[in-house]
Amino acid sequence: MPIAKVTRISASAPDDVAGLETAIARGDIRPEGILAIFGKTEGNGCVNDFSRGFAAQSLGAMLERHVGAAAREVCLVMSGGTEGGLSPHWLVLERGEGMAEPGPALAIGRAHTAALAPEHLGRMGQVEQVADAVRRAMAAADIADPHAVHFVQVKCPLLTAARIGAAQARGASVATTDTLKSMGLSRAASALGIALALGEVAHGDLADAAIGTDAGLWSGRASCSSGIELMGHEVVVLGMSPVWSGRLAIAHGVMADAIDVAPVKAALAALGLSPDGAGDQIVVLAKAEASRSGAIRGRRHTMLDDSDISATRHARAFVGGVLAGLVGHTELYVSGGAEHQGPDGGGPVALIAPRPL
Amino acid sequence: MPIAKVTRISASAPDDVAGLETAIARGDIRPEGILAIFGKTEGNGCVNDFSRGFAAQSLGAMLERHVGAAAREVCLVMSGGTEGGLSPHWLVLERGEGMAEPGPALAIGRAHTAALAPEHLGRMGQVEQVADAVRRAMAAADIADPHAVHFVQVKCPLLTAARIGAAQARGASVATTDTLKSMGLSRAASALGIALALGEVAHGDLADAAIGTDAGLWSGRASCSSGIELMGHEVVVLGMSPVWSGRLAIAHGVMADAIDVAPVKAALAALGLSPDGAGDQIVVLAKAEASRSGAIRGRRHTMLDDSDISATRHARAFVGGVLAGLVGHTELYVSGGAEHQGPDGGGPVALIAPRPL
Amino acid sequence: MPIAKVTRISASAPDDVAGLETAIARGDIRPEGILAIFGKTEGNGCVNDFSRGFAAQSLGAMLERHVGAAAREVCLVMSGGTEGGLSPHWLVLERGEGMAEPGPALAIGRAHTAALAPEHLGRMGQVEQVADAVRRAMAAADIADPHAVHFVQVKCPLLTAARIGAAQARGASVATTDTLKSMGLSRAASALGIALALGEVAHGDLADAAIGTDAGLWSGRASCSSGIELMGHEVVVLGMSPVWSGRLAIAHGVMADAIDVAPVKAALAALGLSPDGAGDQIVVLAKAEASRSGAIRGRRHTMLDDSDISATRHARAFVGGVLAGLVGHTELYVSGGAEHQGPDGGGPVALIAPRPL
Amino acid sequence: MPIAKVTRISASAPDDVAGLETAIARGDIRPEGILAIFGKTEGNGCVNDFSRGFAAQSLGAMLERHVGAAAREVCLVMSGGTEGGLSPHWLVLERGEGMAEPGPALAIGRAHTAALAPEHLGRMGQVEQVADAVRRAMAAADIADPHAVHFVQVKCPLLTAARIGAAQARGASVATTDTLKSMGLSRAASALGIALALGEVAHGDLADAAIGTDAGLWSGRASCSSGIELMGHEVVVLGMSPVWSGRLAIAHGVMADAIDVAPVKAALAALGLSPDGAGDQIVVLAKAEASRSGAIRGRRHTMLDDSDISATRHARAFVGGVLAGLVGHTELYVSGGAEHQGPDGGGPVALIAPRPL
Repeated sequence: MPIAKVTRISASAPDDVAGLETAIARGDIRPEGILAIFGKTEGNGCVNDFSRGFAAQSLGAMLERHVGAAAREVCLVMSGGTEGGLSPHWLVLERGEGMAEPGPALAIGRAHTAALAPEHLGRMGQVEQVADAVRRAMAAADIADPHAVHFVQVKCPLLTAARIGAAQARGASVATTDTLKSMGLSRAASALGIALALGEVAHGDLADAAIGTDAGLWSGRASCSSGIELMGHEVVVLGMSPVWSGRLAIAHGVMADAIDVAPVKAALAALGLSPDGAGDQIVVLAKAEASRSGAIRGRRHTMLDDSDISATRHARAFVGGVLAGLVGHTELYVSGGAEHQGPDGGGPVALIAPRPL
Repeated sequence: MPIAKVTRISASAPDDVAGLETAIARGDIRPEGILAIFGKTEGNGCVNDFSRGFAAQSLGAMLERHVGAAAREVCLVMSGGTEGGLSPHWLVLERGEGMAEPGPALAIGRAHTAALAPEHLGRMGQVEQVADAVRRAMAAADIADPHAVHFVQVKCPLLTAARIGAAQARGASVATTDTLKSMGLSRAASALGIALALGEVAHGDLADAAIGTDAGLWSGRASCSSGIELMGHEVVVLGMSPVWSGRLAIAHGVMADAIDVAPVKAALAALGLSPDGAGDQIVVLAKAEASRSGAIRGRRHTMLDDSDISATRHARAFVGGVLAGLVGHTELYVSGGAEHQGPDGGGPVALIAPRPL
Repeated sequence: MPIAKVTRISASAPDDVAGLETAIARGDIRPEGILAIFGKTEGNGCVNDFSRGFAAQSLGAMLERHVGAAAREVCLVMSGGTEGGLSPHWLVLERGEGMAEPGPALAIGRAHTAALAPEHLGRMGQVEQVADAVRRAMAAADIADPHAVHFVQVKCPLLTAARIGAAQARGASVATTDTLKSMGLSRAASALGIALALGEVAHGDLADAAIGTDAGLWSGRASCSSGIELMGHEVVVLGMSPVWSGRLAIAHGVMADAIDVAPVKAALAALGLSPDGAGDQIVVLAKAEASRSGAIRGRRHTMLDDSDISATRHARAFVGGVLAGLVGHTELYVSGGAEHQGPDGGGPVALIAPRPL
Repeated sequence: MPIAKVTRISASAPDDVAGLETAIARGDIRPEGILAIFGKTEGNGCVNDFSRGFAAQSLGAMLERHVGAAAREVCLVMSGGTEGGLSPHWLVLERGEGMAEPGPALAIGRAHTAALAPEHLGRMGQVEQVADAVRRAMAAADIADPHAVHFVQVKCPLLTAARIGAAQARGASVATTDTLKSMGLSRAASALGIALALGEVAHGDLADAAIGTDAGLWSGRASCSSGIELMGHEVVVLGMSPVWSGRLAIAHGVMADAIDVAPVKAALAALGLSPDGAGDQIVVLAKAEASRSGAIRGRRHTMLDDSDISATRHARAFVGGVLAGLVGHTELYVSGGAEHQGPDGGGPVALIAPRPL
């Protein structure tokens, strides 16, 4: 029976793979079983955050030493920004086999897509392609019921001048010629692809014009990041499967705003954990964002008007505090940039923890 | 009987006194009764934060229109920095008279000191002077028992080149010739003066050499800020007095680290409030600081290594999130720079709320 | 005969008006003659720069003490941002009368406009209104020939939610409902209004759709800033007039990119100054901007990709260095935000200096 | 005869080694001849600048593919910070052999030192060790006369908790237990080592107490950076040698303050270049720093008081502008952190260019 393993390892720098090496040397992590590594690195999480590329290069070289070319299959999702008290760390997602407590238990599935045609980026073509990949990743995780999916991480491509030119040479038009905007559009279409696959939005509600604009459409389980290094998509689905075994379980909630702790407490309770001091072993995956309204429960915030610190950095620090106060530690995977990933100013929070004995 | 009134007013900008004007026009605030105004303004809270001076100039001009030269007696404490979701606001502290629910109730006392001789700044002379003023402010608030004091705000002076020169011309030596360092030393000596007056440290444990260096000495109720605009000190004491009446009460706790919510929950309980959703009416006064150890509960934080954002800004955003998640709103007076004001990485939190009926 | 006087005064803080008070007390500045004060203040020059408002409040109160309600006629243009070695200072522009060296000499003219209807902001209606005001300010400066105009400063309004609502209630549509974008559109339309009045663009080349978009249309003498505090426009024209007398003269050049010093050297030469060490008395008014192309002479710059420091701050620091290296001092009025104010990545530079005897 | 070759290559990102690969593939660079690569990378140049490590990792892996273990001998000096219009690039310093124009010509010498005992860091022991290495690097460059040395780059170690502990376990004391301060002390001692070797300071003027404190002691040709990755020192000397041949020459000047262009113009003239538009081929190596006095030629600067942008970033942007305005391009190696490397607020500038035919 498949068993999911999630190992959280502190990182002393973006290129600190020593902790992973030690865990592998000890046999705590089996490198062949690694499906994905999520990393919280200490850059600014914005355009010029080189801590992500540095981490990915370091992890890739380390994996290659262990598993050779298969290292390229591992999905490396680096999220920059450990503002406030957040602590840099790696989350190693592993699929093992063996006998353990019977499920349902945490299950991990992965899927890759073909290269996305540039003219489909930020449009329904991308939505459909991602939705299809989410369904395949669910199948890989032995999850049939969309309600049993609690978190979907997608890495998606962006447009470059070269890709735009190639499309235009074929007579195709692209959604935007602004490469920075293409990142947001790609995340937006990917999030809606997740929402579609999970039944959170209906196909009839979606259209090219809604992508990136209609804030009423969102997934409560999506987390998307775009990167220049890939042409297709990498999809990681986390959910509960009756086929999988092991002690880990996952639950999620959707914060309606930046201080909305009730859904997180409910998710803690669903995992059998106390809302007061969930403990050090819990893994937290969350999205944070400054509300476009400029207010939290009617009180003005200044995140969008601060020309010295980007709003995403403010939001991660603040929501990081909200969540750390709840769970009692600071190694939380809180990421920003949340188009269609939760409601405006709020966002999805997934929790992974061992089931109580 | 004296009645304390605390009015929290949202500010749309550092010079936005319209809310105060409206409250005065409506009779909700009696300008003659204003003892102090604390302001949370949206600058960086560091050296070049002009939002504080802008706010103080705007408030001062407004008060002068209402009460003339008496405006200069009002203690204006502007704390810069509304990082994360924190919301700019004013806290108007007022002393009224009348018949109300019998006490003990929130009491407010204020004291000024004579000009501090520059050679005493950051030394025992300042400690003693502040301790004396705290005792006088306690008397003004009709508080005899130091345990009934829950928050003490001190505005203290700093050294300038001119003040240093004047002392040296008299043959006196100063604790530092670095004007920026003198700000920290002045806050440090003031905090120890508060600790001394409240019995939190013994006189025998204090010495010039301990000021600013011995992190083991601290007050759990001190909040200090230094400013160039004054030569002496302004002290505001908040506590519970049997002589005062009215519905307001105050309690406090000391966070041991940035995510230590238990003492805050205890203070909420002491006020008869639920730890889940304390509600919009609660006033929060807190100090936040990045731990010098570089870690929170053993997990590395990156606040001290971030050359793009000062550690105090990170800390306010993060602790602001911790507290906002607890109390349910974002108009919190969270300030930084916490020499001897709580333990390393933690800090005092005072809460003011109406007593349950 | 009118005589222009320009007094440059160092500022130790945004509210430091002591230097102006001293100059007035000495008789060096006659407060009744002040037409405008330009200030370089030490904020970030972006959205949350409160150093500008603080300076304007301080200057306004000071002027009111001297000239009463007439203080409101003085055009106060505060430009935030003294990055790099730039030094905060005031430029007091004064009109005197008397006998002096015969002209042509520096002349200063000022004009105000009526309130701009919100539906005209960022559109041809604003262009026309500004062009008309520039012509009136030229007349006030006794300048008939547009070629004799070397610098035009315009303060222009922006849209607020209230102003947008008022227009829409009347059935009128506005150019944008985004208040931040309205600032850029207002500067853009104002710059094109200047260009139109000075004959730099033809009326037939202008249209609503070109405002803020057609980078090929620009003025080499425009400097525009938008502010919430006014509904109409304030226009200050600086040029050479045969009617004015006095020793001051003005010249200008247009930098084609951020390191294009040749036009500045030519302007220095036009004033009879050496290109090597122009000297401390020279007044410099310049616009700086990061090129949208992402390059300077084919070499990539990183200003637009830096999520820690806004591009305008980078550009002021850098162009400030270019110009300070040329003229030999750092009290330069270098401002950012240059829609239609010079070519992409370059900008106008005006120089004021005494004519050689 | 040895021939020095300096190839400047634009970098599109910290890990962009494509330009070097192309130059090697074309035969323009012979990898075996590379002595050092200096890189200007686009991080913040401060504590958390990961662009440097990312670049060094990328360059190291590239070199290893070409020359194997010999890659470790190449001195990689990554300087973070391309503020203002500065442009990221690599400077590849190569030693070739062949027949060319007879010298004197640019010569390059390199030396490594043994590991520095931690108790010597920031003290005379380090000064002596660096001075000795500079002399050896001069010998390697066939330079006998210290006046013929125009630039010395030193990479030096820092203290870590482990290194401090090792020293203390042996009963040795270290100059500081603050690891950040140890970086500055190491640069300071290294710069004085250079000054000693070049005869810029006398041995009798040096003492432990002067290191990092006596601003009157400095080298006009030193550039030092400290890094955690080495225990000893790497020294690169650039100067003129009669033994070397080739077209390249080097000259230098020392800016007395941030806008002191005269010494740079003199160095341009010494190379036979016009001070107006030196041209794209010139290589510039410079140090930039905010003056501790807080002023430039008596005018206040705000670099040291800006809590949003570190002073080194301001200084690089500004001095970058001063120099780019002079030489006419923006691929300048301007680095910060200048203890004993030029006078306060000023710094050394070295220029490399082909000798006129």
